[in-house]
Amino acid sequence: MKLWQKRFRAPLDPLVEQLNNSISFDQRLAKVDVTGSIAWAGALAKAGVLTPDEGQAIQTGLGQILGEFEGNEFQFLPGDEDIHTAVERRLGEVIGPLAGKLHTGRSRNDQVATDFRLWLAEMAQSLTGDVHALQAALVERAERDAGIVLPGMTHFQQAQPVLLSHWWLSHFWPLGRDGERIAQLSQRAMVMPLGCGALAGTSYPVDRFDLAQQLGFRAPAPNSLDAVSDRDFAAEFLFTAALLGVHLSRLAEALILYSTREFGWMTLADEYSTGSSLMPQKKNPDPLELVRGKSGVLTGRLAGLLATLKGLPSAYDKDLQEDKPAVFEAADTISICLKVMAGLVATLHVHGERMRAAIQSEGLATDLADYLVMKGVPFREAHGAVGAAVALTMERDQPLAELPLADWQAIHPAFDADLYQVFDVDASLARRAAWGGTAPQAVQEQLALAHRALEASEQVD
Amino acid sequence: MKLWQKRFRAPLDPLVEQLNNSISFDQRLAKVDVTGSIAWAGALAKAGVLTPDEGQAIQTGLGQILGEFEGNEFQFLPGDEDIHTAVERRLGEVIGPLAGKLHTGRSRNDQVATDFRLWLAEMAQSLTGDVHALQAALVERAERDAGIVLPGMTHFQQAQPVLLSHWWLSHFWPLGRDGERIAQLSQRAMVMPLGCGALAGTSYPVDRFDLAQQLGFRAPAPNSLDAVSDRDFAAEFLFTAALLGVHLSRLAEALILYSTREFGWMTLADEYSTGSSLMPQKKNPDPLELVRGKSGVLTGRLAGLLATLKGLPSAYDKDLQEDKPAVFEAADTISICLKVMAGLVATLHVHGERMRAAIQSEGLATDLADYLVMKGVPFREAHGAVGAAVALTMERDQPLAELPLADWQAIHPAFDADLYQVFDVDASLARRAAWGGTAPQAVQEQLALAHRALEASEQVD
Amino acid sequence: MKLWQKRFRAPLDPLVEQLNNSISFDQRLAKVDVTGSIAWAGALAKAGVLTPDEGQAIQTGLGQILGEFEGNEFQFLPGDEDIHTAVERRLGEVIGPLAGKLHTGRSRNDQVATDFRLWLAEMAQSLTGDVHALQAALVERAERDAGIVLPGMTHFQQAQPVLLSHWWLSHFWPLGRDGERIAQLSQRAMVMPLGCGALAGTSYPVDRFDLAQQLGFRAPAPNSLDAVSDRDFAAEFLFTAALLGVHLSRLAEALILYSTREFGWMTLADEYSTGSSLMPQKKNPDPLELVRGKSGVLTGRLAGLLATLKGLPSAYDKDLQEDKPAVFEAADTISICLKVMAGLVATLHVHGERMRAAIQSEGLATDLADYLVMKGVPFREAHGAVGAAVALTMERDQPLAELPLADWQAIHPAFDADLYQVFDVDASLARRAAWGGTAPQAVQEQLALAHRALEASEQVD
Amino acid sequence: MKLWQKRFRAPLDPLVEQLNNSISFDQRLAKVDVTGSIAWAGALAKAGVLTPDEGQAIQTGLGQILGEFEGNEFQFLPGDEDIHTAVERRLGEVIGPLAGKLHTGRSRNDQVATDFRLWLAEMAQSLTGDVHALQAALVERAERDAGIVLPGMTHFQQAQPVLLSHWWLSHFWPLGRDGERIAQLSQRAMVMPLGCGALAGTSYPVDRFDLAQQLGFRAPAPNSLDAVSDRDFAAEFLFTAALLGVHLSRLAEALILYSTREFGWMTLADEYSTGSSLMPQKKNPDPLELVRGKSGVLTGRLAGLLATLKGLPSAYDKDLQEDKPAVFEAADTISICLKVMAGLVATLHVHGERMRAAIQSEGLATDLADYLVMKGVPFREAHGAVGAAVALTMERDQPLAELPLADWQAIHPAFDADLYQVFDVDASLARRAAWGGTAPQAVQEQLALAHRALEASEQVD
Repeated sequence: MKLWQKRFRAPLDPLVEQLNNSISFDQRLAKVDVTGSIAWAGALAKAGVLTPDEGQAIQTGLGQILGEFEGNEFQFLPGDEDIHTAVERRLGEVIGPLAGKLHTGRSRNDQVATDFRLWLAEMAQSLTGDVHALQAALVERAERDAGIVLPGMTHFQQAQPVLLSHWWLSHFWPLGRDGERIAQLSQRAMVMPLGCGALAGTSYPVDRFDLAQQLGFRAPAPNSLDAVSDRDFAAEFLFTAALLGVHLSRLAEALILYSTREFGWMTLADEYSTGSSLMPQKKNPDPLELVRGKSGVLTGRLAGLLATLKGLPSAYDKDLQEDKPAVFEAADTISICLKVMAGLVATLHVHGERMRAAIQSEGLATDLADYLVMKGVPFREAHGAVGAAVALTMERDQPLAELPLADWQAIHPAFDADLYQVFDVDASLARRAAWGGTAPQAVQEQLALAHRALEASEQVD
Repeated sequence: MKLWQKRFRAPLDPLVEQLNNSISFDQRLAKVDVTGSIAWAGALAKAGVLTPDEGQAIQTGLGQILGEFEGNEFQFLPGDEDIHTAVERRLGEVIGPLAGKLHTGRSRNDQVATDFRLWLAEMAQSLTGDVHALQAALVERAERDAGIVLPGMTHFQQAQPVLLSHWWLSHFWPLGRDGERIAQLSQRAMVMPLGCGALAGTSYPVDRFDLAQQLGFRAPAPNSLDAVSDRDFAAEFLFTAALLGVHLSRLAEALILYSTREFGWMTLADEYSTGSSLMPQKKNPDPLELVRGKSGVLTGRLAGLLATLKGLPSAYDKDLQEDKPAVFEAADTISICLKVMAGLVATLHVHGERMRAAIQSEGLATDLADYLVMKGVPFREAHGAVGAAVALTMERDQPLAELPLADWQAIHPAFDADLYQVFDVDASLARRAAWGGTAPQAVQEQLALAHRALEASEQVD
Repeated sequence: MKLWQKRFRAPLDPLVEQLNNSISFDQRLAKVDVTGSIAWAGALAKAGVLTPDEGQAIQTGLGQILGEFEGNEFQFLPGDEDIHTAVERRLGEVIGPLAGKLHTGRSRNDQVATDFRLWLAEMAQSLTGDVHALQAALVERAERDAGIVLPGMTHFQQAQPVLLSHWWLSHFWPLGRDGERIAQLSQRAMVMPLGCGALAGTSYPVDRFDLAQQLGFRAPAPNSLDAVSDRDFAAEFLFTAALLGVHLSRLAEALILYSTREFGWMTLADEYSTGSSLMPQKKNPDPLELVRGKSGVLTGRLAGLLATLKGLPSAYDKDLQEDKPAVFEAADTISICLKVMAGLVATLHVHGERMRAAIQSEGLATDLADYLVMKGVPFREAHGAVGAAVALTMERDQPLAELPLADWQAIHPAFDADLYQVFDVDASLARRAAWGGTAPQAVQEQLALAHRALEASEQVD
Repeated sequence: MKLWQKRFRAPLDPLVEQLNNSISFDQRLAKVDVTGSIAWAGALAKAGVLTPDEGQAIQTGLGQILGEFEGNEFQFLPGDEDIHTAVERRLGEVIGPLAGKLHTGRSRNDQVATDFRLWLAEMAQSLTGDVHALQAALVERAERDAGIVLPGMTHFQQAQPVLLSHWWLSHFWPLGRDGERIAQLSQRAMVMPLGCGALAGTSYPVDRFDLAQQLGFRAPAPNSLDAVSDRDFAAEFLFTAALLGVHLSRLAEALILYSTREFGWMTLADEYSTGSSLMPQKKNPDPLELVRGKSGVLTGRLAGLLATLKGLPSAYDKDLQEDKPAVFEAADTISICLKVMAGLVATLHVHGERMRAAIQSEGLATDLADYLVMKGVPFREAHGAVGAAVALTMERDQPLAELPLADWQAIHPAFDADLYQVFDVDASLARRAAWGGTAPQAVQEQLALAHRALEASEQVD
């Protein structure tokens, strides 16, 4: 029977029951629900609402139920509408009618909001570990691939040579921002709804500060109406997951392209590749494509929850129930994607020699302009001169490095024979030595900073 | 073992396997997958690729497997990567090595796209039935509630009185557009990918026109590359579901508000209401809130798939696998929401007397302006005059109908004693007699059209 | 002064005025607004609400205003709240107080909904022309590039060779579906709101069927409440634009990749490329990137409007004003993107010889499996055998076509010396001769169908 | 002429030019662009790339241009592709060929990313002021409306009485979270791209730490590839704006409903209401509807940018240009919505007596259950007993407070004559005295905390 059936003359329509029930997904909150109830029973006892013996008996019963969840022995029954009802039903079986005192001064509105935040905090911590693991894989990769040079791209056209280590690290820092966002939203979410009742607060003299401390919250929520309807943390998590997904998708996209035969710069390990049911030769980067595809799904989950939240008029509305499937799915998705990417990055094979061979002398055109600048030519004029040389070689289908000196000098008199020294890739890299650049020394400094950042964030975990 | 394992030296990483497997959701395609394979085996036999006996044996084996799915007796095994693999694996158990000939000239790319379209067509038909059922409930309601007058709203402020039947029917027509969209997308989707192979077409002389006819498609897809990567139909379905969701959400929102104590215009049946775990008196419109909330989720599913599709570079990519969870969830969601709304609309109790009592004389202000127009006053001037009268009664906190004649005439000399006759709600309604208006006669004509529309679309089903 | 100011005691707050005004974007509806008003004045005259002279005078005045808009001579004034107010204000200046009779029996609610649908119908026709122009460019390209062979991709890995013409046409058919969707939504939208008043219908005996015919609508809307609040057509247009954007984005993505130096299969014309402010050698595919980027924006516009519509409670609400900026922007965006893509496709340079040189013998692995099938080996076994051969050549870093016969026969005894004939790309293409496949003959038939489809849809325009 | 024209043989197609140009929106970055260039010229001079005189002359010229922007005297020319080009073109006019040295070692990629972040930081500060102003209006309102009691709602059904001050404050705290998010994202965004060149870093010995300090950044970006393509801050801002929009939409929705005639709890000031072109009596809450509608648009802007970002393969791609129109529009939208809401909240009229009159005795049902709990009845049993009483009075259409004692006692023997004292609204409020509850004393404490929070965040500004 529903907790609230006595006020009604007819039972729920079965389809409504199906639409309404949340037990299929909110059982995931089982442990935090029991934990919250144990603390609530304690608070009621401290407030004198329960006798010490009653409080003790309820907590012992709940402890047993927690054990059943931990041992996967808890039996859900068809009538269990949601996780809260299931636990209270079971408590009645374990300790008898005294179970009916647990829900005193509490509503499912403050209860589920508390559960969800407790779950989020745990998940955030675990997810932070996944983020760090991928960051560590990228750092490790950056160190392993020291000295390899990649044709750096903008607009997906070759632009300037960069160190592969520098490129790997360019995917490290976005994850650092993701980690920071997870930490901040998790911190912001740890404000406790429990003790806010359905909307107006509890009418029992519960010490909510003490209760918050016991459950690991920063503070009790200062406004009961806000506390039961605030799902900012769910939206914020979905955003953070979606943006994390964007970062993974961009990395996946690059790795997919670099591991085509046409690029030929990387090969995925067999453990991270799949085949075709028809074409015997295929080796497909399915994990990367799934990571890329799921990133779109995450964006949709965010847009969906925002649309749902936007339409709410007041305090608690049942629409809020849609928060959990979205957040649960997003958390699972982003966690497995992070783990798979870490393994894939660690095991792929880099073809450094092919990368270097792919670098065209045109990639040093900026260095040639800089060469003129050093001779006193204004940059804009230098840029135009080199552009004219490129146009000439394009027409002739000739590499830039092979343009005769006479042609150079016809374009601009400041060119001299030493211009050909500019076509030295390693020298070009070394020139980008300012902080954040791709010079080997600058990348070493960046690696050191990455290590420090990773250590600092891991200490916070 | 994977179908394609022989080309690889190492098995898939277990997490990748988990990320990759689609059996958890694509088993929903079981029956259409087998149906498609039966037709494919027939086509191979007709083309001479299989002997008649081979074709027959494969079809018999598949027929047995179809029976297993229909009887819920099919046993999935842990190694079943997707529904196609599972069926081929089982076929091998049933008929031996001959099973290995079924996949000749076919790829999972064309196979899954065919399955999904076949499933969509069936689902669309069933969903159309759900749409019609809600439309029928609205028509029935419009007929039952004949004569009841509702304070019509714009900007959620009272505007003009309308017939409640008219209001119910205003929710009928959007569903008609939804039904039309479902029919058109379903028709558009029925172009057959089978026989397109992985991307380039099949190298066996299969008659794809014959095959299409057998499977109920309009035509075989004219371009193999497009055929295997086209998911327009999935996006189009998600859009149609999302817009249907918007329509249901708007109806739900109105019913939620009309059944508040403050409005008091309707009461939901107990079968469509739920209570509170804390507040014993509560009777909450949970089904309406869930319908409203799920509408947001549907929008998100659409945005998610579009984001995923947008990022695809070519032919078939594994990202496309994300199409099915979204479409399956949306189809289930919209179907149950339609069914629940039909039951809820049919069973709610309307308080016609309270609706009529709620109508304020200000709701006839437009009629007063029309009264002046009939006396030759330009509408814009008439509108201003009545507006001034309203402002005056607002200051005095006086109903418009009680403003003394002297005041009216002070505002505009064309007002005369007969103006008070304008405050007759029934006469006001009767004046809106142009097609599509709220006059009883016009609503009768509209009802007749609604019946014809419903019958016409049901015949198409 | 506002049309409705007389009912109020205080003017609008200036910031509210700024938030509220729509003249900055709805002036785009100027001509259809006047056209609608001319028809409305005619209908009022026919209904006897205006004298023939009055009707004539109003229509003449409106005709003059239409001329002012067409000649870009219309002067907007700071107080013009929206396009309807601006036109009525100007009409007063032109014909005097009689202008105050135009708005008789009409509301801005039915007026703007009518305007918007009229505008949409015109825009849809123009947009259909843009779609056809790109389709024509693709067909022309497919014909021009006859005989060129492209390494076909799935999972962005080489899969099987295909004709480039076949690939160009794979982008033709999605646009055909887009065109069909535009035609259907435009047809569905052409139901006339005019004569529905604010929500309840008009109280004047206007013949809405006649009015609809004059304005080019299919029919007058059958329900006044629905008519003023239905924005399905706006949502449906945004969806169609978003999906069109997805199709353009996928084509753009492929062209970006094919025109990298690493692929080297195409070169964009200079007219469709841009350079870098820093790197003199750069030739960037900016137009393709902008098309790809804008596709994301379109998805967002759709998600935004659905979220806005979802939250509406009743008939007309001011939230609906957000429909126009979104639709106007989407229409402009998709139109320019279609035009740019047509020009870019027509002018790019294809390097057919590099494409053919890029085809690897592994791309014929499926043909090798088919070779075994023809010798009676079940496909699944044949697939495994070729997969094993591929794995072997991978280890040896050897092209598949160079694997010695002895190795083939060690893998499967059915391999014989004639297997090497399979590595003939043209023969491979020719084998995919079933309808929709990439064989030259099949592509010819497809081209003929494309021509017929294009002609048929152009006749409909 | 384009900066990069020399490398090309043909000018841009005019439609591509139209698609490509960003000057229509990025001129908004004019002042920060010049500021950034002044600092860059200084850094080049410190690094010895410019002579002190050259650096001085460039800075003087730029100072003059800054003055032109500040005085709205800057003349854009048709050929100005973007704001950076326009400034450099103008600098050439002002100081001659020396202007060509400004862009040394810099790319538009790092330049625009720097500009955008500088702009964001200024905007965030201004927006924070708007947030605080609305928070202050809510606090002021909560203080002004002390003692007024509102029928608190859940599921938009009356639940329990709450103080109106408590309700106003429930909209204060979400804005506090918004403010916190703005501060954190603004802080996170203040990492400087300048000196990262196009992708690989600058080849001139510029001190980026010094440069960052001068421009007000926290630090120079540690990775040049990430620095030029990172738009996390744009996405994060759009999310924050969208969630802020959700908060405003929920408040707007409640105010729309509370100011209906049916509720009658509030009346908007005339300055925040509009009328109808047809219905003279209408007073519509247009500003609230626009705020609600625009909230949907914001969600779409976010979904759109995420879809665009997700599809990017590498470093800088032109797709990123879509970031600015979205962020500029969102910033303007949310700013004006905040300002309008602050004015609207401050000026609306509250009808406290109607609110209190609207409270039904059923709203004290929970208190009756608590009454039984105090007599030792387990809460679950007490809840059932009161539910049964409610069901009884529903059938009899009788207020709960008027149910005779005999009926109460028939339902549960623990009911006694003192139960009628429970129906005292003020006593009920007073019982919810735990922290965060609606008791007057608790709300006083909450108000004090709100004041402290507001002061603390304003000091941070």
